[in-house]
Amino acid sequence: MKIALLGGTGDIGEGLALRWAIAGHEIVIGSRKEEKAKKASESYIERLENQGYSPDIKGFENGKAAEDADIVVVSIPYEHMESTIKGIRESFSDQIVVSPLVPMKKVRGSFVYSVPEKGCAALELRDLLPEGVSVVSAFQNVSAVKLADISKTLDYDVVVCGDDEKSKKMIMELAEQIPHLRALDGGILENSMMVEAMTPLLITVAIKNGMKNLSIKFI
Amino acid sequence: MKIALLGGTGDIGEGLALRWAIAGHEIVIGSRKEEKAKKASESYIERLENQGYSPDIKGFENGKAAEDADIVVVSIPYEHMESTIKGIRESFSDQIVVSPLVPMKKVRGSFVYSVPEKGCAALELRDLLPEGVSVVSAFQNVSAVKLADISKTLDYDVVVCGDDEKSKKMIMELAEQIPHLRALDGGILENSMMVEAMTPLLITVAIKNGMKNLSIKFI
Repeated sequence: MKIALLGGTGDIGEGLALRWAIAGHEIVIGSRKEEKAKKASESYIERLENQGYSPDIKGFENGKAAEDADIVVVSIPYEHMESTIKGIRESFSDQIVVSPLVPMKKVRGSFVYSVPEKGCAALELRDLLPEGVSVVSAFQNVSAVKLADISKTLDYDVVVCGDDEKSKKMIMELAEQIPHLRALDGGILENSMMVEAMTPLLITVAIKNGMKNLSIKFI
Repeated sequence: MKIALLGGTGDIGEGLALRWAIAGHEIVIGSRKEEKAKKASESYIERLENQGYSPDIKGFENGKAAEDADIVVVSIPYEHMESTIKGIRESFSDQIVVSPLVPMKKVRGSFVYSVPEKGCAALELRDLLPEGVSVVSAFQNVSAVKLADISKTLDYDVVVCGDDEKSKKMIMELAEQIPHLRALDGGILENSMMVEAMTPLLITVAIKNGMKNLSIKFI
């Protein structure tokens, strides 16, 4: 599968690139600047080759990265979602686009979910993209730090939401190609709000209780 | 500690009554009808005595139950919050009032968090009560079924939110008097929205994935 990671030079994009390259996928790192994307892809290749893997990773400007990928993960900060997607809208056709986006604000020392007018970031993203695109939301609650450390076992849950069952199942399968990660069906795309809201809560709970890089498990 | 459980005849109120009675607290079950509260308290006493405990549980109408309790848990359905609290508002003075309340709706087979105008149920509850009352939110994400089955080990997390640090710490301590339950500081009361939103997600994930009575763990 050809997977593009917009904003794949850091945060959750880094870990997904490394983990899915290990699983044998063709990875395309996207960035606002092609140079930055190429540099990141070279460093990922080096890290993986040092561990004995033979990764297939390339770097391009975001639009070119999205263009002929089967799956596009919008792993950019929420604040840049609208401008980034509007700028490269014509690069999308009938891909599956994954939203790990989370709108949040800081209130009196706490990170709080900032409810967008449409209800959640995944619904906003859907409305910014052409009609043929299938939006699925996932990976909001996995620690980016742990994801990027390929020596770490990720015994966590990823809740996947989407209105198209086939696309949702495909992303659930892709999530479970990362060892120990458990994909849970979270229902319709509108439900993404509840999954997105967990992210600032994880950050706040970590800060308030002297914990670090928290993820979630449903038991 | 004298703990009143409004709506303590079922759902989460039942489990909290049993578990806190075991921990040695004085429990007052509240209900709209005193008769129903008395009946529930008698059945709880019987169940606990059969297990070798000597519980102190009484039953009263909601207002009388709240009156001289140190802590009042509003374990009633969200839909009845406003009418119930308005009807017994004069029974509150300077207690700690606990909100496990969750506003939710059903959308296309999924349970979805229904964001109230004020942001969350805990903030709504606070504004319905007299000023001296300290509102703390907790216990939204613990399975009522497991809580009421005192043979069950509850190795889950309870996120506690509140604007008064002392009240919050007290509820965190009270939560941890239930063996294995871990209380996590969730910050300010406004954060309750993110904790409340997890409840419909737990229900939806359970339905969609063939699971049952889910709770949450931060790892």
